Amino acid sequence: MIAVLKPGVSKQQMENLIMWFKGRGLDVHISEGKYQTVLGLIGDTSKVDIDLLNGLEIIESVKRISDPFKSANRKFHPDDTIIDVSGYKIGGGNFQFIAGPCSVENHDQILEVAQGVKNAGANLLRGGAFKPRTSPYDFQGLKGEGIELLLEAKQKTGMPIVTEIMNINNLDLYEQVDVIQVGARNMQNFDLLKELGHTGKVILLKRGLANTMKELLMSAEYIMAGGNEQIILCERGIRTFETYTRNTLDLAAVPMLKELTHLPVIVDPSHATGMARLVKPMAMAAAAAGADGLMIEVHNDPKNALCDGAQSVTPQEFADIANRVRKIREVIQQ
Amino acid sequence: MIAVLKPGVSKQQMENLIMWFKGRGLDVHISEGKYQTVLGLIGDTSKVDIDLLNGLEIIESVKRISDPFKSANRKFHPDDTIIDVSGYKIGGGNFQFIAGPCSVENHDQILEVAQGVKNAGANLLRGGAFKPRTSPYDFQGLKGEGIELLLEAKQKTGMPIVTEIMNINNLDLYEQVDVIQVGARNMQNFDLLKELGHTGKVILLKRGLANTMKELLMSAEYIMAGGNEQIILCERGIRTFETYTRNTLDLAAVPMLKELTHLPVIVDPSHATGMARLVKPMAMAAAAAGADGLMIEVHNDPKNALCDGAQSVTPQEFADIANRVRKIREVIQQ
Amino acid sequence: MIAVLKPGVSKQQMENLIMWFKGRGLDVHISEGKYQTVLGLIGDTSKVDIDLLNGLEIIESVKRISDPFKSANRKFHPDDTIIDVSGYKIGGGNFQFIAGPCSVENHDQILEVAQGVKNAGANLLRGGAFKPRTSPYDFQGLKGEGIELLLEAKQKTGMPIVTEIMNINNLDLYEQVDVIQVGARNMQNFDLLKELGHTGKVILLKRGLANTMKELLMSAEYIMAGGNEQIILCERGIRTFETYTRNTLDLAAVPMLKELTHLPVIVDPSHATGMARLVKPMAMAAAAAGADGLMIEVHNDPKNALCDGAQSVTPQEFADIANRVRKIREVIQQ
Amino acid sequence: MIAVLKPGVSKQQMENLIMWFKGRGLDVHISEGKYQTVLGLIGDTSKVDIDLLNGLEIIESVKRISDPFKSANRKFHPDDTIIDVSGYKIGGGNFQFIAGPCSVENHDQILEVAQGVKNAGANLLRGGAFKPRTSPYDFQGLKGEGIELLLEAKQKTGMPIVTEIMNINNLDLYEQVDVIQVGARNMQNFDLLKELGHTGKVILLKRGLANTMKELLMSAEYIMAGGNEQIILCERGIRTFETYTRNTLDLAAVPMLKELTHLPVIVDPSHATGMARLVKPMAMAAAAAGADGLMIEVHNDPKNALCDGAQSVTPQEFADIANRVRKIREVIQQ
Repeated sequence: MIAVLKPGVSKQQMENLIMWFKGRGLDVHISEGKYQTVLGLIGDTSKVDIDLLNGLEIIESVKRISDPFKSANRKFHPDDTIIDVSGYKIGGGNFQFIAGPCSVENHDQILEVAQGVKNAGANLLRGGAFKPRTSPYDFQGLKGEGIELLLEAKQKTGMPIVTEIMNINNLDLYEQVDVIQVGARNMQNFDLLKELGHTGKVILLKRGLANTMKELLMSAEYIMAGGNEQIILCERGIRTFETYTRNTLDLAAVPMLKELTHLPVIVDPSHATGMARLVKPMAMAAAAAGADGLMIEVHNDPKNALCDGAQSVTPQEFADIANRVRKIREVIQQ
Repeated sequence: MIAVLKPGVSKQQMENLIMWFKGRGLDVHISEGKYQTVLGLIGDTSKVDIDLLNGLEIIESVKRISDPFKSANRKFHPDDTIIDVSGYKIGGGNFQFIAGPCSVENHDQILEVAQGVKNAGANLLRGGAFKPRTSPYDFQGLKGEGIELLLEAKQKTGMPIVTEIMNINNLDLYEQVDVIQVGARNMQNFDLLKELGHTGKVILLKRGLANTMKELLMSAEYIMAGGNEQIILCERGIRTFETYTRNTLDLAAVPMLKELTHLPVIVDPSHATGMARLVKPMAMAAAAAGADGLMIEVHNDPKNALCDGAQSVTPQEFADIANRVRKIREVIQQ
Repeated sequence: MIAVLKPGVSKQQMENLIMWFKGRGLDVHISEGKYQTVLGLIGDTSKVDIDLLNGLEIIESVKRISDPFKSANRKFHPDDTIIDVSGYKIGGGNFQFIAGPCSVENHDQILEVAQGVKNAGANLLRGGAFKPRTSPYDFQGLKGEGIELLLEAKQKTGMPIVTEIMNINNLDLYEQVDVIQVGARNMQNFDLLKELGHTGKVILLKRGLANTMKELLMSAEYIMAGGNEQIILCERGIRTFETYTRNTLDLAAVPMLKELTHLPVIVDPSHATGMARLVKPMAMAAAAAGADGLMIEVHNDPKNALCDGAQSVTPQEFADIANRVRKIREVIQQ
Repeated sequence: MIAVLKPGVSKQQMENLIMWFKGRGLDVHISEGKYQTVLGLIGDTSKVDIDLLNGLEIIESVKRISDPFKSANRKFHPDDTIIDVSGYKIGGGNFQFIAGPCSVENHDQILEVAQGVKNAGANLLRGGAFKPRTSPYDFQGLKGEGIELLLEAKQKTGMPIVTEIMNINNLDLYEQVDVIQVGARNMQNFDLLKELGHTGKVILLKRGLANTMKELLMSAEYIMAGGNEQIILCERGIRTFETYTRNTLDLAAVPMLKELTHLPVIVDPSHATGMARLVKPMAMAAAAAGADGLMIEVHNDPKNALCDGAQSVTPQEFADIANRVRKIREVIQQ
């Protein structure tokens, strides 16, 4: 960590500051320039509050040299973390498809889609029971009943299930859920993250719409600080000025995150683009970028259903995507 | 609402769609162009799910003509809402200063700051007890004890208090809190919003870092849908590519929001800029833009304290700001 | 095009407006709703100035239904445009690698890199002679001498060359240049675009740092309006709030643009990420997303050179990238 | 400037690097940490190319401590620059209104508006002759004829004139133009900036739609490097995800820029918001934020004209704005 002092700081002020750093176990190297003095802080600076430092009258700016995340940091944990969901592994060279409908709608729909994506090569089933919607007037999901239906599909197909949590008070509904998803809008719902850190569940943590990779890793750190290190990160598009696509899928985040952290990184091309016809190229691109998995929305009959999304593909389309993705995986593993 | 059909849609498909709209109580006007057919949907479209429509195979695009928010919409409620906090009014020409420390630290600090800002013209006291921090290693606030200290300051000074909630399970701690703040990171924590909709509390709803004005109004709508119409909106800076300032304070949002909604709109210049020396010009600018109030971080001794923010001003600086803001208010009210 | 009138517009005002539209050859369909009247404008609205309409007192908002670009629009030109550069085709299923150094530095460097990338499978040679730099104190390129060196490399290797133009007054220097590049910062230098529209040169038009796909297509339209339809579009990353990568490569722009336009779309993964180690995964991802080509920075010895970019790969690394990209092309063409 | 070395750099590599820095006249301070070595570079680093450094194999990251602009930097030029346009001063406590139509349309229009804004308190007349438009099909301005009309208005009213240049080849048309404007889209048209650096004209440099303050100052530096230090900076809104307003006016840029540079900073509230009804509050806010001037679009009859912008106010509205802005100036100067 580098602290640049303002011009004209007194000897006494500087010494006080250095004492304060040393009291926090840090070594301080001093570089006095013509215009400015720069302090280099050596040691574990991950627990130094950068906002507090910036607030000091005598400091012009503070910059971190090392990343503020520890448990998620690849520097201190060079080997890939491999997440095992009922025998299906993600990370460390293992790749999984997570597929299913945007929302669980009814018994027949979820079973039909589950069977369809399983046949097409998906190993994990996703489905929304609690749905975060911008408008209070939009459909909010089947809630507890949706989870029941997912569990039924799990039992019938043997697929572990992935579904989103919006409220920690519903945690007991997720007892048999295999992977708990934290949605983009809750990525910085720190109280939720803390509580999930005390569960033994695999957490699928989605990047927020306007959150940096660093913030995503800090949110993972919240969960890991509680003792739960079973986290899958998910890139799902960020908010930009572009309007043709719903969000901008940041695929460079895949290799970048994998350099920064040992946690597996998957991609959700369905939400990012908001258009079914873009799911196939972006799924293939995500695989080519090195993703450890894909989460794809699949619906049994998007053409006729009035209640399904622009972003869902059919099981047949999903099968084609999965097939090509597997071939791309071969190319990158050569 | 306008639905543009894809070229080549069959007569039957179009009729099915029109029947579906009519079943939702909407009138449909048809404009057939050379390349495309456009349907105009007349009636209350606020409850039509635009994502669902976009998902239909036969639809190219859907655009809203009217805003998707109802209760917060000035069109249906032309008069300014005036929020009354223990006799201090906000909105409809009434302006208030909300001031206090970023975090409540201890008994002496909160009392000294409270007295200082009261003397300088603030009527409401703010202070953070539960603090949302990006890093789990940063100070998370005094929590329940912080609220106790705020209540003590309220009793001693007579100032109503404003403090943030992060977890609905802590609601009983806020029984004597006058204004409950929903922070930027929780603006789309819909479960929290719904619960606050069932309280009788005044809610100060901050705009999310990367949320549009429309989304802010939809979040207000979540609270209002539960029956609670006592909402103050707060602009506090949005995330952009600029790095010299922490966020970009969107002051045009003040007159724009006041045109769209009848709810009062205040501005927080401290968080937006992250720098104490920018608080004064931006507070004055916010008042000139027509804000109904200002929320400003004030600390008793930012120069010497190691634990205070770059963004806090002293009570003396606050007094100067408040004095100039009052004069600017006179100019805009002439 | 849809024009929503303000509530309370008089019959006379509306009739004047309708007459004005009809005078521009447009048909007008009127939908009168309870709160608002909506006019649907049918016909060629590409030449209606949306800003002018928005300025009218009686209009609340105007929305385009059809895209404002014509010559570049796939709707009016369904077949892929194929660009032929000295026998090397781009678009319509044809893919090319464009490779070479960021800046032309000297005779040996450009010849060595040219030979290296040719051996590795590149058919077009790129190299910067005029360099747009944020700082006036940074290296601005070898200018005319750089173009001379590129032409020498062209003669020795037989590779057509691609290089950027910054000033239309230098056009005569580009007489033997095969593809003239318009850089991101000049994407809306409309005078430059107009002049290039009067040349017979192939133009490689890069998307601006903060420009939408629609604006990119409108800039292509500027060139095409002058009669030059030989345009290759290039996605090279957009500006967002993320800081780990230099820009955010918008790969969904590839399939989206190819749906909107018949022009070929290539990707520059070097500038987008700013890091050599991200070039390989993003090049592969771009190919998987359906790009018609890749433009990649290659340097003969980036490790030892003090004057080369973080974003350049070696000829050996480029050969590996090219090899894998060809295999990915096979997967998408199956 | 701080250079962080990668772990595992050899003694020899580090020494080579240090020699290279010393060859550029820099002192190097070395801080060896447990995980990483950090080099502090002391001296004039404004001419070190940060991209080149980032490209070195042995460097993990490079951060500037001091700003890369010199001539524009307040540190080396503490006193405000005062620009004098025919006796009307801008900067150093002097404030001017620049007003006039978006486009010069005809003789009567420009004279009527000029007289109107003069009566209302404007000292400089603006008007567009060469217009940068996103679409080649939109009105591109009266060009040379527009400048003629502006010069006529100048002669009749005695007001100095401000108008935009888009092409350096038109420079001779600007001989009697008092202030040459560089528009947002040309802020990084470096060849244009360089040429303007060799003129003796006052340059009004607008911030690009997606450019940082640092880049704005670097573009000023391009002009100043040529010897022309007569520059007025102009904030006119940046591109964000918000869609209700055309751009997001970044008013915190006013005090921030004035801290970073000695050049005057004015604000254009018309383009930023794109809506006449937001011009008044944002003009007042800009003045309250400390702007040195305002540039406002004024039209003689926006209500009836079919060819004028949503963003223009009438001379009467302008007079009210100017009147209130003067009162706000009094408040900030107290």
